[in-house]
Amino acid sequence: MGTAAAGDDVDRPLGDQQHKVNLSARRPFAQAVRTGLAETFFPDDPFRGFGALPPAARAWGTLKYFVPALEWAPRYGLDKFKYDLLAGVTIASLAIPQGISYAKLANLPPIIGLYSSFVPPLLYAVFGSSNNLAVGTVAAASLLLASIIETDVPPEENPQLYLQLFYTAAFFTGVFQTALGVFRLGLIVDFLSRSTITGFMGGTAAIIIMQQLKGMLGMKHFTSKTDLISVMTSIFHYRHEWKWQSAVLGICFLLFLLSTKILRKKRPNLFWVSAIAPFIIVVIGGVFAFLVKGNEHGIPIVGDLKKGINPLSISQLTFSEKHVNTAVKAGFLSAILALAEGIAVGRSLALIKNEQIDGNKEMIAFGIMNIAGSFTSCYLTTGPFSKSAVNFHAGCRTPMSNVVMSVCILLVLLFLAPLFKYTPLVALSAIIVVAMIGLIKVKEFCHLYRVDKFDFCICMVAFIGVIFFTMVTGLSASVGLSVLRALLHVARPNTCKLGSMASGEIFRDVRHYPHARNIPNVLVLQLGSPIYFVNAGYLRERILRWVEDEENTCKIDGQDLQYVVLDLGGVTSIDNTGIGILLEIHKSLDRKGIRIALTNPRLEVTEKLVLSGYIKDIIGEEWVFLTLKDAITACRYALQRSRSKEDGEV
Amino acid sequence: MGTAAAGDDVDRPLGDQQHKVNLSARRPFAQAVRTGLAETFFPDDPFRGFGALPPAARAWGTLKYFVPALEWAPRYGLDKFKYDLLAGVTIASLAIPQGISYAKLANLPPIIGLYSSFVPPLLYAVFGSSNNLAVGTVAAASLLLASIIETDVPPEENPQLYLQLFYTAAFFTGVFQTALGVFRLGLIVDFLSRSTITGFMGGTAAIIIMQQLKGMLGMKHFTSKTDLISVMTSIFHYRHEWKWQSAVLGICFLLFLLSTKILRKKRPNLFWVSAIAPFIIVVIGGVFAFLVKGNEHGIPIVGDLKKGINPLSISQLTFSEKHVNTAVKAGFLSAILALAEGIAVGRSLALIKNEQIDGNKEMIAFGIMNIAGSFTSCYLTTGPFSKSAVNFHAGCRTPMSNVVMSVCILLVLLFLAPLFKYTPLVALSAIIVVAMIGLIKVKEFCHLYRVDKFDFCICMVAFIGVIFFTMVTGLSASVGLSVLRALLHVARPNTCKLGSMASGEIFRDVRHYPHARNIPNVLVLQLGSPIYFVNAGYLRERILRWVEDEENTCKIDGQDLQYVVLDLGGVTSIDNTGIGILLEIHKSLDRKGIRIALTNPRLEVTEKLVLSGYIKDIIGEEWVFLTLKDAITACRYALQRSRSKEDGEV
Repeated sequence: MGTAAAGDDVDRPLGDQQHKVNLSARRPFAQAVRTGLAETFFPDDPFRGFGALPPAARAWGTLKYFVPALEWAPRYGLDKFKYDLLAGVTIASLAIPQGISYAKLANLPPIIGLYSSFVPPLLYAVFGSSNNLAVGTVAAASLLLASIIETDVPPEENPQLYLQLFYTAAFFTGVFQTALGVFRLGLIVDFLSRSTITGFMGGTAAIIIMQQLKGMLGMKHFTSKTDLISVMTSIFHYRHEWKWQSAVLGICFLLFLLSTKILRKKRPNLFWVSAIAPFIIVVIGGVFAFLVKGNEHGIPIVGDLKKGINPLSISQLTFSEKHVNTAVKAGFLSAILALAEGIAVGRSLALIKNEQIDGNKEMIAFGIMNIAGSFTSCYLTTGPFSKSAVNFHAGCRTPMSNVVMSVCILLVLLFLAPLFKYTPLVALSAIIVVAMIGLIKVKEFCHLYRVDKFDFCICMVAFIGVIFFTMVTGLSASVGLSVLRALLHVARPNTCKLGSMASGEIFRDVRHYPHARNIPNVLVLQLGSPIYFVNAGYLRERILRWVEDEENTCKIDGQDLQYVVLDLGGVTSIDNTGIGILLEIHKSLDRKGIRIALTNPRLEVTEKLVLSGYIKDIIGEEWVFLTLKDAITACRYALQRSRSKEDGEV
Repeated sequence: MGTAAAGDDVDRPLGDQQHKVNLSARRPFAQAVRTGLAETFFPDDPFRGFGALPPAARAWGTLKYFVPALEWAPRYGLDKFKYDLLAGVTIASLAIPQGISYAKLANLPPIIGLYSSFVPPLLYAVFGSSNNLAVGTVAAASLLLASIIETDVPPEENPQLYLQLFYTAAFFTGVFQTALGVFRLGLIVDFLSRSTITGFMGGTAAIIIMQQLKGMLGMKHFTSKTDLISVMTSIFHYRHEWKWQSAVLGICFLLFLLSTKILRKKRPNLFWVSAIAPFIIVVIGGVFAFLVKGNEHGIPIVGDLKKGINPLSISQLTFSEKHVNTAVKAGFLSAILALAEGIAVGRSLALIKNEQIDGNKEMIAFGIMNIAGSFTSCYLTTGPFSKSAVNFHAGCRTPMSNVVMSVCILLVLLFLAPLFKYTPLVALSAIIVVAMIGLIKVKEFCHLYRVDKFDFCICMVAFIGVIFFTMVTGLSASVGLSVLRALLHVARPNTCKLGSMASGEIFRDVRHYPHARNIPNVLVLQLGSPIYFVNAGYLRERILRWVEDEENTCKIDGQDLQYVVLDLGGVTSIDNTGIGILLEIHKSLDRKGIRIALTNPRLEVTEKLVLSGYIKDIIGEEWVFLTLKDAITACRYALQRSRSKEDGEV
């Protein structure tokens, strides 16, 4: 017994037939580093295929990469413009009420919402790579910005400074977004999982709807907090301010908007009805309020809107020590949020048309448009889902539709703005409520619950955190939980015992394939995921436990365990601690007279194992196999040999 | 063309021979959760095999688990005691000079060092599970504690409060350690990688050696900072305090200690010479200083040491709001550091004797001994490497050697303490320097550089951070870099293209095995590591890029790509975002007329893919295969069929 581990060489039972692991494959260091960096920061490899081009073409290609408009503009013609014109006018009719509504949501002067739909879309048309995205303000980020900036500067006390901080936050948002794009750190957005976004958007939609109770009931006073309990307390506390006129009008508007939504679902080609419905409401509501002098009869209106295009705001950016922290925090959080929404929207629409979106390029485009926006009286803009979907369904072909929208808004700003003075606030509230209802995706919650309970938890933490605490709390708790899960996955990778199937041709997990048979005297373990310091200690414990369990089973069968075969096919990398642990496992097993064999190490792992001397000095090259079948055959052969030797000696 | 993706069923080319993926395998939810929790928090499964026992035996087993002394004490006899006695006396002779030295290093009264070698070893003997560990104070943690507590309370200004904060920190250390053990969070210690520890210990050893220049030169004034630049500035600033007498004596001591170390390397059985050498130096130095009245001639001595055992210090613990933060911070950091050293030492020694160490049980033992220590005038203790190695080489058999050491220290405290008054400080410095030199592992640095450049960076960040900044900076920068690397590994998993080898029997990475051949019309990709939100976006980009590249290659060969086979064997888990990405990939490829086939999904992945409907509704059960060979055969067969159909139509 135990001779198998005694260090004598094994004859190759399969002779030339045996497949050998290529132990000499090794990438030069510089190449390995370059590949590693490229895969980390340039997973999309934007400049591939440039190498073969002449310098001029290469420069033109690079320029086209950074300014996608150069790609489509030269081939642009009337055939595409007629589609873009239609789409542009449609989204402009949506941009006006949405811009005013979301600005009100953020406690900003309503005109800022219109300004924000003028300059940023022009810039996106030049730098953006998505053909479907429509640029504008978004509800969630508006509320998030307001909730952060309010705690520093209450808008009632100092509306001017409050507005300045919005510009400054937009500036930082732009800087962060550009930096993330330039340094190719799109990675950060990856840490917002789909479950987090679903929960966060749902929770935000719920609190935004609650906020609209103020407008629907025509109230003047309201809490600046966003959580359910504060909002409900506030509504009942000021119940003497409730106005039935507002409520009746609001319910009429709501019913109208909802019916156009239902119409759209039943007849998808009538999508434009629901797209211009908000505009219709604003017009009808405005005319009605004007005729009945709504303001004096319990129907508050928007109030004065100045004529004229965006004034410059570059001199209003505030970098005073006292408030800059707030602006940076608001800017950073809304940058991440806006990117997550904008890129997700761009990608999902591109997917339908089978186009490609470059995340890092999009970040730079968003960044540029926000920096420019902060200089021209705009606050945070991104690619909101509702507007982009309308743009898409209206048949947009290129980012030119954004230019058309921008021109429409320009005309409104120059000539029509004062007319929107009479827009009843309740109309804006109804528009927001209907836009938000669709974001609470109950079906998605159920799906998550069915498929993955942990993902459901992550989603619910965001949802409940946003509703009962603050938006930042909900978001960070959910992201924290996701990252913890990621680390746990890494810290506790799955190992499984393989049994033989199909008369020894295939080896699979015995839990998964209960008819897979044990291999006498041999324990085959499949490892997965990288082996490194976080999980190395665990893997040692786990493998030694597998071995102990197997020894106990073997004892009952009257056999003894002689070989442990580690299938490294799923191990994508290994670090110094990992190699140390393999050594420790080897020592522990050696003491028990058990030999280790490795099968199918990947390139990266082979390199490290060879370099560290583990393969040559510790387990021996002849115990590294390309396939499990080879390894098992070799084990059996060595076992027979040692047994016949023992018999001979006896 | 494209018919393969048109949804018509494929006949099974292999008939009954084909191996099927077990799609119905599904663990009940409760079982999956239980297994998950057990693997996360009980990877060592301490109570396995208890289920079958009667309640009394089970209770006894549990008690023995928590009090390992019950395991060995009943079988303890004179045969073992003679070994433990020898080992205990040897480590006691080391504990006296080390205890005094490290207490001086932490700016504490030297007697605290002796106190700390009396109570904690007794407790460890009862609760500890390692037979080789010798308990005592450690240099790195002493300096770390001093550097944190000094910034809050300078020891010159308020030595009493300074000492109290050491007790309080030891109390928190104990609480943290116990909590980590009870809640099975040994996980946290896993985040200190071997590279981090190597670099940190090396850097700490270097700054501790620099600190000893104070003692070696007999200086009185010195900086409280630990970085190289402050220390060097301070030494030259106070150069008028240098005393040649101290320096000469110090060099003699150093040479003596180093020569015993060399002796030990050459003749391992004379290890005891180097083990008692520090004690010899203390005795000789003391006699010498007494005879020549060293204190008056440039050889500073330790000074008064009180007789008597540890006074109670429970009433001295300070929880005042002003200082408790410092104590908590110092306690937490030193808890992690002490655990990392203690557990690593225990494990590596146990490995040589082929014993098992239970990390979580060790944490509880360390925790109990530190809490009890903080009540009895001890500061932080753990299992230092030098002492434990001596214990091991002296032939200890059980934790009884700690009891013997403790009794020796008791005798010293009761009768001999005042004699150590004359110990020259320079002797202590020489002892520390020699103990520290071995911790700067230049060979290990070189090994790291050769095997893994990134690990080398992590190590150097700790090393340089500790030497040039502070210990906490070095440690946290290095841990941060390690965690970042872990996340990057997860965020950018390896994918590789497989080619066929051994006449289509085996499929391996084409970069690793350059002779692996392309499979016409089929692209085989091997994924690794879990697929989830962090890497899902990357994987989509990467897979679509592989497909594009392959299409370009195919075009040159005049073929077209019709199938993408994803080998999921290395994918240990998948989350909701991951499934969403698989869906997106399917849509993108479907549009190009390319079909996806999956091979060998693991149990956890199969469960999720079935539950979400991905397998049944999207790609179809007939396109999930157990082996790559089956998948390729099916692709070829379907291709032939569609071609012959086309030919027939033509």
